[in-house]
Amino acid sequence: RPARTLNEVLFFPSEVSCVENLFKASSPHSCHCPLPHRVETSFSRLLCHLLSASSSLDLCIFAFSNLDLSRAVLALHSRGVTIRVLADQDYSVITGSQIGVLRKAGICVRGHVGSVHMHHKFAVVDGRLLITGSLNWTLTAVQNNVENIIITHEPDLVLPFIKEFQRLWVQSEPD
Amino acid sequence: RPARTLNEVLFFPSEVSCVENLFKASSPHSCHCPLPHRVETSFSRLLCHLLSASSSLDLCIFAFSNLDLSRAVLALHSRGVTIRVLADQDYSVITGSQIGVLRKAGICVRGHVGSVHMHHKFAVVDGRLLITGSLNWTLTAVQNNVENIIITHEPDLVLPFIKEFQRLWVQSEPD
Ligand SMILES: [Zn+2]
Ligand SMILES: [Zn+2]
Repeated sequence: RPARTLNEVLFFPSEVSCVENLFKASSPHSCHCPLPHRVETSFSRLLCHLLSASSSLDLCIFAFSNLDLSRAVLALHSRGVTIRVLADQDYSVITGSQIGVLRKAGICVRGHVGSVHMHHKFAVVDGRLLITGSLNWTLTAVQNNVENIIITHEPDLVLPFIKEFQRLWVQSEPD
Repeated sequence: RPARTLNEVLFFPSEVSCVENLFKASSPHSCHCPLPHRVETSFSRLLCHLLSASSSLDLCIFAFSNLDLSRAVLALHSRGVTIRVLADQDYSVITGSQIGVLRKAGICVRGHVGSVHMHHKFAVVDGRLLITGSLNWTLTAVQNNVENIIITHEPDLVLPFIKEFQRLWVQSEPD
């Protein structure tokens, strides 16, 4: 009998807590920063799901300026996870956008052109876990806005997003 | 054995087609407008799901200016469907917003205050069908942007959104 399909919903704004331990899982946690520790939040759940990637991450995102999320993508890249990032062409040149940082690190980035906005905010992890919702990958969205994210393994939901990513990817320009 | 759970994904921009027949299902379709007829699009699918409401519609939406979607909500209201609309306080006073139109028609509307943005874009139909995604209910989002919507009966996804609506509703002010 197959394991129960993962269907999780996260709501934001998220409480703020230290996420250092998610990046340094091997060492015992002994951070001295002023943030709360060992607190699970919507944001730490999002980071965990993202950092669970072992082979690939396809990211299709309107606005990406959140430093912790950028750090997570860079960490996956340095672990050898194959990453493709599709961003809105206009938004990716805005101050604070992490798209340029990812590109400089050698991550494969493309900018979507030809629509008013590429307004998606979804990620597909290892070709089987979909993360999607209203949440842009910015600090304001995470800490200040009322937002939602769905995280699911349900193939009926995941497969259309994989197909959509592929469709947009081939249309878009390496920039 | 229970029926298979509905899990549908719609992508935008949507093709443009005439949706008159969705509002006047009883009469044979004989519209003479210049738009294509009898074409199923992402937008007509969205309207169909929305118009399937028979008892209640809870709508939690950042931006609502789309006239066809407003017409659908008004049609449900006049059929006796119980409607609650929770809107972003700042956005709802912008030119073209349909929030004032819904309020004037006697629909129960509240404005969310206290966060930077109430950025949700979801609807719950009859307490069991969830419609959620990146799509704001504007004409630009529907016709010009690259956007997504998930439509699902999956209780693990629907129930958290019902709870979230209730939480925000009691926090918000009738305005
Ligand atoms: Zn710390
Ligand atoms: Zn027509």
